[in-house]
Amino acid sequence: MREFILFTHKAVTSDFSLNDLPSAGRMDLVCRCISSALFISEAIRKDTSIHVVLNGPPSPPKTISFFGDEIRNLYPDERTIASFIKIALRKSINLKEKEEILALPGLKISRKSFEDLIKERNERQIIYLHKDGKDFREFEFKENPVIILGDHKGLDKKLEKFLDRFKAEKVSLGKVEYLASSCISIIHNELDRRGL
Amino acid sequence: MREFILFTHKAVTSDFSLNDLPSAGRMDLVCRCISSALFISEAIRKDTSIHVVLNGPPSPPKTISFFGDEIRNLYPDERTIASFIKIALRKSINLKEKEEILALPGLKISRKSFEDLIKERNERQIIYLHKDGKDFREFEFKENPVIILGDHKGLDKKLEKFLDRFKAEKVSLGKVEYLASSCISIIHNELDRRGL
Repeated sequence: MREFILFTHKAVTSDFSLNDLPSAGRMDLVCRCISSALFISEAIRKDTSIHVVLNGPPSPPKTISFFGDEIRNLYPDERTIASFIKIALRKSINLKEKEEILALPGLKISRKSFEDLIKERNERQIIYLHKDGKDFREFEFKENPVIILGDHKGLDKKLEKFLDRFKAEKVSLGKVEYLASSCISIIHNELDRRGL
Repeated sequence: MREFILFTHKAVTSDFSLNDLPSAGRMDLVCRCISSALFISEAIRKDTSIHVVLNGPPSPPKTISFFGDEIRNLYPDERTIASFIKIALRKSINLKEKEEILALPGLKISRKSFEDLIKERNERQIIYLHKDGKDFREFEFKENPVIILGDHKGLDKKLEKFLDRFKAEKVSLGKVEYLASSCISIIHNELDRRGL
């Protein structure tokens, strides 16, 4: 199972308009990442999940998790993905701390923080994309890696320090800083080529 | 200048609703490809253009062309990109055959067909993505390549034969068939790494 974790600074934790995803704390970026993580041509990657930590108002953090092996009726366009996130957020209003619920088949929501997600994956290989990291083509990926991405503002220094405590490894895609969704496509291609 | 050409079977050539891009002949796919072609993190690639051949009703073909060095106020979300396409289509109603107009800075529209675009690029290296092609990491890309992609239905046999006549070269990204937008991200990364 490949797992992606996307940390966002401002993606909202309440209802939002499908007609203006950028104003919902860059929910457009969130949707594109989910699309890149889960879809190949005419199919869903059953071996992949993606968790998005929403840290925007009014009640952060919330984490939405899409599981490729269970999700149904999802399509790769931003609006359809956003409509799934809306359903999950609507069902999360009375969520207690650390509680996780199934909003739809293959779609969970919880009040977990980014740190919670990392702690749960303590035994796994944790990788985060960073321009000073080791080149991804030379990097030794293990089975079932956890790959962390930041939104357009990247990861804060504080979070990078937190990741260092968990021996997270820095990986670079090259000199250009890509859209988070493009990073996911590039990493998937590398892992596909290696049969991981 | 990197150029991408996306061939679509059904992307509409008249007005469409921003609230249902998939029903407009997979205009969502078109928008994602434009986003992947033109955007890196927090910036536009000034060295890239993308041409999309719309072959859907009511008046195919039409070609919309986005130029990274001239386009203004574009954002990477599907809806914003679709709104640019709508403006171009609205201005194209009285377009004569082969005529090309500037709809907005960095955005042109014409009645050119896929074949017209290829003929104009006769002197350039033309590449199309195909699972039986040469592996992209071994492939000898030249300066200013023209890279051709099909939509979710791929390219027809007839078009492949047409491309063969122009000595177009087949390139493969591996065994997995990716979303067209992911293909663009992967190719960009390869060209970036080579400094092309």
